[in-house]
Amino acid sequence: MKIAVFNWNGSCCLGLVDEANGVLSRFDVPHHVCEKAGVTALIGQEFPKVVEDCNLVDVQLLAPVPRPHRNVFCVGKNYHDHAKEFSRSGFDSSAAKGEVPEAPIVFSKVPQSVIGPGKPIRIDEKVSTAVDYEVELGVIIGRSGRNIRSEDALEHVWAYTIINDVTARDLQGIHSQWLIGKSQDTFCPMGPWVILRDELDLSDTGVRCFVNGECRQNSNTGLLIFDVPTIIAAISNGIELMPGDIIATGTPAGVGIGFKPPKYLVTGDKLRLEIDGIGTLENPVEAW
Amino acid sequence: MKIAVFNWNGSCCLGLVDEANGVLSRFDVPHHVCEKAGVTALIGQEFPKVVEDCNLVDVQLLAPVPRPHRNVFCVGKNYHDHAKEFSRSGFDSSAAKGEVPEAPIVFSKVPQSVIGPGKPIRIDEKVSTAVDYEVELGVIIGRSGRNIRSEDALEHVWAYTIINDVTARDLQGIHSQWLIGKSQDTFCPMGPWVILRDELDLSDTGVRCFVNGECRQNSNTGLLIFDVPTIIAAISNGIELMPGDIIATGTPAGVGIGFKPPKYLVTGDKLRLEIDGIGTLENPVEAW
Repeated sequence: MKIAVFNWNGSCCLGLVDEANGVLSRFDVPHHVCEKAGVTALIGQEFPKVVEDCNLVDVQLLAPVPRPHRNVFCVGKNYHDHAKEFSRSGFDSSAAKGEVPEAPIVFSKVPQSVIGPGKPIRIDEKVSTAVDYEVELGVIIGRSGRNIRSEDALEHVWAYTIINDVTARDLQGIHSQWLIGKSQDTFCPMGPWVILRDELDLSDTGVRCFVNGECRQNSNTGLLIFDVPTIIAAISNGIELMPGDIIATGTPAGVGIGFKPPKYLVTGDKLRLEIDGIGTLENPVEAW
Repeated sequence: MKIAVFNWNGSCCLGLVDEANGVLSRFDVPHHVCEKAGVTALIGQEFPKVVEDCNLVDVQLLAPVPRPHRNVFCVGKNYHDHAKEFSRSGFDSSAAKGEVPEAPIVFSKVPQSVIGPGKPIRIDEKVSTAVDYEVELGVIIGRSGRNIRSEDALEHVWAYTIINDVTARDLQGIHSQWLIGKSQDTFCPMGPWVILRDELDLSDTGVRCFVNGECRQNSNTGLLIFDVPTIIAAISNGIELMPGDIIATGTPAGVGIGFKPPKYLVTGDKLRLEIDGIGTLENPVEAW
C-alpha cells in the first residue's frame, strides 16, 4: 500500500498509488488537512473513501510529510562501511571515540528543509562548497511512547519512506554539532510516497543512490549498525516519541566525501535514490 | 515592557507585567491563539487592547512560547570559562579541536521539552543519573531572514527570555551528538516572561544560577565567545530563520559537571535562574 501526497488542480491531496497502472486514487481529505499533516493525517484511522482516480503523470508529488511537526530525527554513522569512510574523511568532528559509535548518534534537521520529489536541492556557493548526498530509510512514527523497549518498537512504526540527508560537509565539520550543516534550506528531499510498516523487510531491503546514473551507494537495511528497533528505543529514552515523528536511519558508504578527491554535488547533477519496495526519489541539483 | 503567557480562570492568556504592583494587564487575545503561539502572537503587531487587570499571585505563569514551532536552537561552549570546564569534564565528545570552538556549536532541543515557571524538571533515574543545569539568555526571533549579516542581526530579534538548558551529561556523552541528552522531557524550562529587544544591554547583563540558594553560575552576557549577532549570522547561513524561532545562547561556568566531584541535580533541588532586567525563573526538581 503506497500513500502519496500530491498537488492536483491546485489542491493538496492524499491518495493510494497504483504504480503499475499509473493511477492515484484520491481520498476524501480536505486540502488544509493534507497540507498540514501530509500522510500522517491517516495515522490510526480507517482509510477515507476514494473520490476519484487521477493519472500519476498529471499530478505533482509532494513530500509525504511536507512540513514535519518538529525537527526530523537523524542517525549518523550507522552503516559500518560508511562509519569508516566518514571517520577517515577529516570532517568527523565528533568521532573522538573510534569508527563505530557505542550508541546511536542522533541529530536533527529543521522541518523547513524538507522538499518533495523533483524539487531542486539548491547549492548556495556563498555558504557551502561541499554539498553531499546520503540515501536513507525514513521511518514515520504512528504511536506515541516513552522509554520504548526495542522488542516493542516496531509497533510504534506506521510507515517508511526515502530520505536524502543532504549535508554541507564543510559546515558539518566547522560547527562540530551537525544541525547547521544538515538543516540547510532544501537539504531534506523526502518521498516519493510511503509504504506501510508490514510491507518492508527491515532485515533485507536494498538501498541505492545514483548520481547522473552512476551508482554511488548500494547497500541493504540488514547492514545497519543500530537497527530500527534499537534506534527507536534510544530516541524514546527519556523523550516522548509522537505520531508524525520522522527518523532518518543513516546512510551506507559511497557518499561524496568517501572518494579521493571527494565527489561533491554540483549544479546540474541528477540524483536518484532507490529503496526496494518503496520506490524512487529523484531530485535535480540547482544553484541558489 | 514585560510580556507573559499565563493561565487565568482556565484560559491561556497574554498580558503586560507590572512587577512592582504585582499586576498583569490581560490583552484581548483568544485562548487558542495564546496557546498556539504564546508571546509570538504579538510579533509585528500593535499591542491589542487591555481587557482587565489580574493579580500576578492569582495566575499561573506559562512558558512565553509554550510550544515552539520547531526545535529550539542552542549554542554550546559559548563562554570561555565554561568551555574550559566542559572540555576537561570528560563528557565533551565533540571537543576534538580544543577548548574554544572555531565556530558556534549549534544543536537543538525538541519543542516538547519546554516547561513553564514553577513546573518540575523531572529526573528519570532509569534514563540518566547525571542531570545538569545551564542558565542561558534566550533570544526570540521576530523577523525572518537568510544569510543575515551580523551587523543587521539585531533587527531580527524581537525579545529575550531566560532558558535553562537542562542536560543529561551521560546521554550527551554517549550519543556524541547532543540532541538526546538535551531534549529529555521537561529539560527546557523557559520564562518567566519576555522583555523586548531594546530593553536589554547585550554587552553588560548579569546571568546567574542558584541551586538551593547557593550561587553556582555568575557571569555576564558581555563575556559570550560568540555574541548574539554572530550566532544569528551563523544559524541563518543557508537556513531561513523565522519569526518565533528561539535561540539559547550558551551557559557560563559553574554547571554541575564543572565540580569535582560533579554536583548533579537531585530530587528536591530548587533552581533559581536570574538575568538582570528580565527576572527570575524558578523550577523544582522532582522524580519522574
